[in-house]
Amino acid sequence: MTTPVKIIGSYISPYVRKVLVVLHIKGVAYEIDPIIPFMGNERFSKLSPLRRIPVLIDDQVTLADSTVICEYLQDRYPTPALYPDDIAQRARARWLEEFADTRMGDVFIWQLFNQVAINPFVWGQKTDEAALKKTLAEDIPQVLNYLEAELPAEGFLFGELSVADISIAVFFRNAAFARFQVDTARWPRTAGFVKRMHALDCFARLIPFEDRMIRTPIARHREVLIEMQAPLMAESYGTSTPQRGVMRI
Amino acid sequence: MTTPVKIIGSYISPYVRKVLVVLHIKGVAYEIDPIIPFMGNERFSKLSPLRRIPVLIDDQVTLADSTVICEYLQDRYPTPALYPDDIAQRARARWLEEFADTRMGDVFIWQLFNQVAINPFVWGQKTDEAALKKTLAEDIPQVLNYLEAELPAEGFLFGELSVADISIAVFFRNAAFARFQVDTARWPRTAGFVKRMHALDCFARLIPFEDRMIRTPIARHREVLIEMQAPLMAESYGTSTPQRGVMRI
Repeated sequence: MTTPVKIIGSYISPYVRKVLVVLHIKGVAYEIDPIIPFMGNERFSKLSPLRRIPVLIDDQVTLADSTVICEYLQDRYPTPALYPDDIAQRARARWLEEFADTRMGDVFIWQLFNQVAINPFVWGQKTDEAALKKTLAEDIPQVLNYLEAELPAEGFLFGELSVADISIAVFFRNAAFARFQVDTARWPRTAGFVKRMHALDCFARLIPFEDRMIRTPIARHREVLIEMQAPLMAESYGTSTPQRGVMRI
Repeated sequence: MTTPVKIIGSYISPYVRKVLVVLHIKGVAYEIDPIIPFMGNERFSKLSPLRRIPVLIDDQVTLADSTVICEYLQDRYPTPALYPDDIAQRARARWLEEFADTRMGDVFIWQLFNQVAINPFVWGQKTDEAALKKTLAEDIPQVLNYLEAELPAEGFLFGELSVADISIAVFFRNAAFARFQVDTARWPRTAGFVKRMHALDCFARLIPFEDRMIRTPIARHREVLIEMQAPLMAESYGTSTPQRGVMRI
């Protein structure tokens, strides 16, 4: 392929991160339009009927769901494989991706990150301290207990790196943005796994962009990414005003 | 395989229906434990960390997400294929499945079916007439407008029957339970598609069980299914008391 794949979506999103990590592992060049979904314009709504990021656009498809995008990238660029060869293990990998996308999404993004970052900085609302307290005391420990029983003491879940490892690890970057660190005494496997994963080149190379974006007002994301020589798309699907209502068709 | 696959989940659920249709097409025998997710016991919560139905259990896996189950059934029983061969079409089929699972799930299950059936009959709560009115006036037309632009005038979405056709069609059975019919003048392609799909043997054979279950109190589902000679699992993962809180780990 001669032209880079286009990715619409912010470096801050765990679902965008999942796809960027997969693109890097597959050796596929990309350009990014760094919008967050609340800031998408009408053209964005057409491309992404659920107003989700990332959206991937290439010469063959426009896809607006990270799981579907990763399956497509695996089908189109088969090596290195990110889905186990064994049928039962492959199903287990897909299940763990779904668990991460859904449950870790609920807890780490909608409950934790939303309360400490999106509510105050996008909507100008106060953090709901009671809800945040429950998230930290109940929901996050439930998720970490589940992961602790699933994750390996060393290496990856299924021998080689897979979409399951990536899908789980991406959420701990957003946890870090919200100043949450896994307690290594209580969940040693999970803490070790997160540390190993984030040290991989495919994660480490994104960290400078993420760390900078999380400290940059949304309106300045694009100009700061130009300064940082990020692989930026010329076109933007963003607006300057946040829009409530994630669902549009 | 000598023993039938085990499916935990009610005939009323669109996600269970999707998997039963796929099992029938693949020629895989199954037994069912007809619980609804609110009525699952602690063993069910262990098998299904998101307390979703269906759960599939066979000699190799325990899986608790309908999309992951369908991918597994395709991998394990490749013919007839339910995913298009062409990589871009396969991605499009997976997207439409995701759209159906998420958006049609929100609108037809959580908004429509929940209001007219689950709220009154499981929780003893009145239907929220204002919310229902908005669903019928805004959300359902949005979904049907989207589908009308995607669905074919004849036949299936990708030539042969695929997981996308099935995933969309299952929700219209729940719409019918809630006495909603697609307006053939306003959405002729969608109305025609639904009629064609529900006439297929893989759908038609489930309809007697569904029609009977929707009129049967939950506590009597199992005994009525015995009368009807449904392929019933001996074991049950159900309780007699509904439990709030879909998420448990």
